[in-house]
Amino acid sequence: MNDTIRLLMNHRSIRSYKPDAVTDEQIEAIVAAGQMASSSSNVQAYSVIAVRDPERKANLARMAGSQRYIEECPVFLVWCADLYRLEHAAQTHAPEKESYSDAVENFIVATADVTLAAQNAAIAAESMGLGVVYIGGIRTDIEGVSELLGLPELVYPIYGMCIGYPNQEPGLRPRLPLKAVLHNEAYQAETTLQAVEEYDQTMVQYLSERTGGTKTTPWSQQMAQKLTTPSRMQLKEFLEKKGFNKR
Amino acid sequence: MNDTIRLLMNHRSIRSYKPDAVTDEQIEAIVAAGQMASSSSNVQAYSVIAVRDPERKANLARMAGSQRYIEECPVFLVWCADLYRLEHAAQTHAPEKESYSDAVENFIVATADVTLAAQNAAIAAESMGLGVVYIGGIRTDIEGVSELLGLPELVYPIYGMCIGYPNQEPGLRPRLPLKAVLHNEAYQAETTLQAVEEYDQTMVQYLSERTGGTKTTPWSQQMAQKLTTPSRMQLKEFLEKKGFNKR
Repeated sequence: MNDTIRLLMNHRSIRSYKPDAVTDEQIEAIVAAGQMASSSSNVQAYSVIAVRDPERKANLARMAGSQRYIEECPVFLVWCADLYRLEHAAQTHAPEKESYSDAVENFIVATADVTLAAQNAAIAAESMGLGVVYIGGIRTDIEGVSELLGLPELVYPIYGMCIGYPNQEPGLRPRLPLKAVLHNEAYQAETTLQAVEEYDQTMVQYLSERTGGTKTTPWSQQMAQKLTTPSRMQLKEFLEKKGFNKR
Repeated sequence: MNDTIRLLMNHRSIRSYKPDAVTDEQIEAIVAAGQMASSSSNVQAYSVIAVRDPERKANLARMAGSQRYIEECPVFLVWCADLYRLEHAAQTHAPEKESYSDAVENFIVATADVTLAAQNAAIAAESMGLGVVYIGGIRTDIEGVSELLGLPELVYPIYGMCIGYPNQEPGLRPRLPLKAVLHNEAYQAETTLQAVEEYDQTMVQYLSERTGGTKTTPWSQQMAQKLTTPSRMQLKEFLEKKGFNKR
């Protein structure tokens, strides 16, 4: 155990922020730390849009499903997978060649690259005493978000991230038992499913304590509900229109 | 600046390892730190296979394109996006309902979730004095890797990660200028392309110093080469066969 691991083990998402300012210097240090994450073949296939303007934040909050912490946080970062720079390089240096920016491989590369950078940035922010929460809700009206932020072809917004000084101290949410996710030498399907049953009991108790017994749905039932509810089904078409994930 | 940010800013990928053992307890602490990363709606859509067996590592090294550090490192982690547990929950609790595990949205969720966890794990490992390198090469023979590790439907291996004590001290690789990736309020296309020109010069100098002038290809030319070379074009079919990314 060391200070960094202690920090990682203490993560909780923050959904209420103090009005205290987060400076440009802080955001620059946070994003610079993001840039030092690994990147597939050094492609650095991401961009991040820092939004401070209240009206723009209000629009983003509405598009993400009216999450008021997007308006409340002093800075809202929109993380984007970005092959625009690479495509420009291809068109400049190899205009006679076919570009594979629309390949699933490059969609995975960009999606992983932006997430490595975002998570480094999240940790850097937390190490400064700031709190963060990822906002997948920006994929709900991904077309609106893209227009609002002027995103060109081969750039898609994957999630937002609220940043600010925490105005709450939520408890740690229990994770799946380690054996559910850590396998030795090969995938252990039975073990992972057994671990889900244990986790269901853990989460029933956790939710019950948090809500005074009003909410006690086991995790696996929540997951069944989630997976059987169609969500953001326009993404495939949107991404293909933006030039991604076609072949 | 604090110790955690110093650690993040000091990342370099390690491709040569000492024979010193990495214990099970270390791997468990590393993966547990990974689990504390944010997860979309708490789905925790990932698994990680820890491979120590020399023969299995040799096979993986061959499948990834003969990267000898996969054989050399004491532990090789294979990170997988994993909707298998969720699909099982859906089939158990809502067998009458249609599952959207094959939606692009859930492909993005799983790909992001595994990467948030992997990056937390990478930082935890580095905080212990270990070195890591991500291995995208396991997607080259993704079918072979999946068979070797017994991955069920709705699980795909996104990258490997070598872990071990560093036997080298590579220099820091310069990143794109901050202004290339950090935009204010909206995407700044001209700024990002100008920044690429600056970075080209930075990288020519960096490569020239590192290789004694034998390798001096500007970054944008490398990227053009990369994007116009077909790579892992079987991924689309493989992922759809595994149940992902279909609609």
